[in-house]
Amino acid sequence: MQDNNIDLTIVGSIGIDTIETPTEKREEILGGSASFACAAASFFTQTGMVGVVGTDFPQNYRDAWTQMNIDLEGLQTVEGQTFRWSGVYEENMDNRRTLSTELNVFETFSPELPEKYREAPYLFLGNIHPALQLHVLEQVHNPRFILIDTMDLWINVDRPDLEKVISKCNMLTLNESEAELFTGERSLVKAAHALLELGPEYVLIKKGGNGSMLFSKEEIFLLHAFPLDSFKDPTGAGDAFAGGFIGALAASGKTDLASIRSALAYGTIVASFGVEEFSLERLIRLDRKQIDERLNTFKKMCQL
Amino acid sequence: MQDNNIDLTIVGSIGIDTIETPTEKREEILGGSASFACAAASFFTQTGMVGVVGTDFPQNYRDAWTQMNIDLEGLQTVEGQTFRWSGVYEENMDNRRTLSTELNVFETFSPELPEKYREAPYLFLGNIHPALQLHVLEQVHNPRFILIDTMDLWINVDRPDLEKVISKCNMLTLNESEAELFTGERSLVKAAHALLELGPEYVLIKKGGNGSMLFSKEEIFLLHAFPLDSFKDPTGAGDAFAGGFIGALAASGKTDLASIRSALAYGTIVASFGVEEFSLERLIRLDRKQIDERLNTFKKMCQL
Repeated sequence: MQDNNIDLTIVGSIGIDTIETPTEKREEILGGSASFACAAASFFTQTGMVGVVGTDFPQNYRDAWTQMNIDLEGLQTVEGQTFRWSGVYEENMDNRRTLSTELNVFETFSPELPEKYREAPYLFLGNIHPALQLHVLEQVHNPRFILIDTMDLWINVDRPDLEKVISKCNMLTLNESEAELFTGERSLVKAAHALLELGPEYVLIKKGGNGSMLFSKEEIFLLHAFPLDSFKDPTGAGDAFAGGFIGALAASGKTDLASIRSALAYGTIVASFGVEEFSLERLIRLDRKQIDERLNTFKKMCQL
Repeated sequence: MQDNNIDLTIVGSIGIDTIETPTEKREEILGGSASFACAAASFFTQTGMVGVVGTDFPQNYRDAWTQMNIDLEGLQTVEGQTFRWSGVYEENMDNRRTLSTELNVFETFSPELPEKYREAPYLFLGNIHPALQLHVLEQVHNPRFILIDTMDLWINVDRPDLEKVISKCNMLTLNESEAELFTGERSLVKAAHALLELGPEYVLIKKGGNGSMLFSKEEIFLLHAFPLDSFKDPTGAGDAFAGGFIGALAASGKTDLASIRSALAYGTIVASFGVEEFSLERLIRLDRKQIDERLNTFKKMCQL
């Protein structure tokens, strides 16, 4: 059974997206937080996916995950349509507008972890309802490191459950505007310290093309984004960053700050590849050598 | 005469500002690009200021510069009122609106460099009309390194002179939106490469609280901003960054990339102190020990 071990369990959404950018429109492409995060993590560690799809879910999308060596035992297939999202990116790619959301089978999703996922030492609670994130925590056996993501919706509609689940995690990640919404603080330093009061050891604030900031009570760690000439689609960048990070951390087997910093750099690099094309199209062609080469370039760019 | 040498000449505006932030309003405070840049450079090297004030200019502002050991032989005092600017910062401090601009003695300013300034090996052409920047270049004796700043106004109204003066400089600095305005490129990487085509070896793009990016034809260097709990007034941050940078570079006596990177970190740190208070109020109380301490903290935050 040793070769069948799961090092990292990732729970999140799986969607079929329709995305419009200033130059291109793509319909019915593979998306969702679990999809991007598992793909990014798969370069580093044995990853198991927990999510739900409908009976309409295309076999070739499932094959793409299998090709990336993602374990799908935790993937539920339920009678009905897969979750669908469509959105449009404005001229500068900074703002996106949701055009439609159809929850479909995601509406009644309850994450159930296969036995082998419960023992995984690393866990990423991707962005789903905090009550479902809590339900996952009831099933796992004392993981070494838990990362949690969330979004503005849950901050607005279920703050009590969200605060409860965050208190049980090692690291909270969210973006700039969500940190401000959550705390009412415009300063990211103040917002992060308010969020640390909820209990996690670390708060990781994502700033898109401007990188990210990691906060503990004592320290701040600053991370750039990798500068790209151009990119096609920022959808899933935050999930790929988080997934690449926790995948690399799981591969290290450690949880100390130096390992976390090193893993964050890996997350940055994988996310930068991800946005070069739509959906998982770039990640599926990516290999570890390309990741390491870009990481070396990146490190030189960051040297003080 | 050796002790009277000027290592760095800085040309720019000197203004009396009235500034409103969401929490405070301050009237008739010392500002201007030359004022902030010279103050920032003064921690590192012997700096000479070229600018103009009116006969109304307060003696205590002049004393502030002298106290910082800035050489004022290049400062002209002309009958009339000093340049005045007033502006207001919106809620998030990201956007500012100009309420009024009175050029006054600045309208007929022609920078004339004292003999000893012409020999300075380092030169910073702060943001003034490109024709005046060209006039400065006619007076200097082959400086080792020339940094030039500009603004949207000159990009819009005198692009030919601006391109001419940029072609004679080693490094161009400007902010994100100016880089886009200048080149029509939304990607900073593409914008920077288009600007490098004008002739400078380096393009330094300022991103405010999100740091800066240095480009040469072959390399990119990424720099964070120092994260602050809070700040009072971002006015002059870009000038303090540029002034601190070229001051530190002048102190090194070098112009290689490693020295430039190290000097940019100093610029970042001095600018971070500058915004903690209005005008030069924090810089005038700052010392080199505080700068070096924060720089050490900063380097730890940036370590990959």
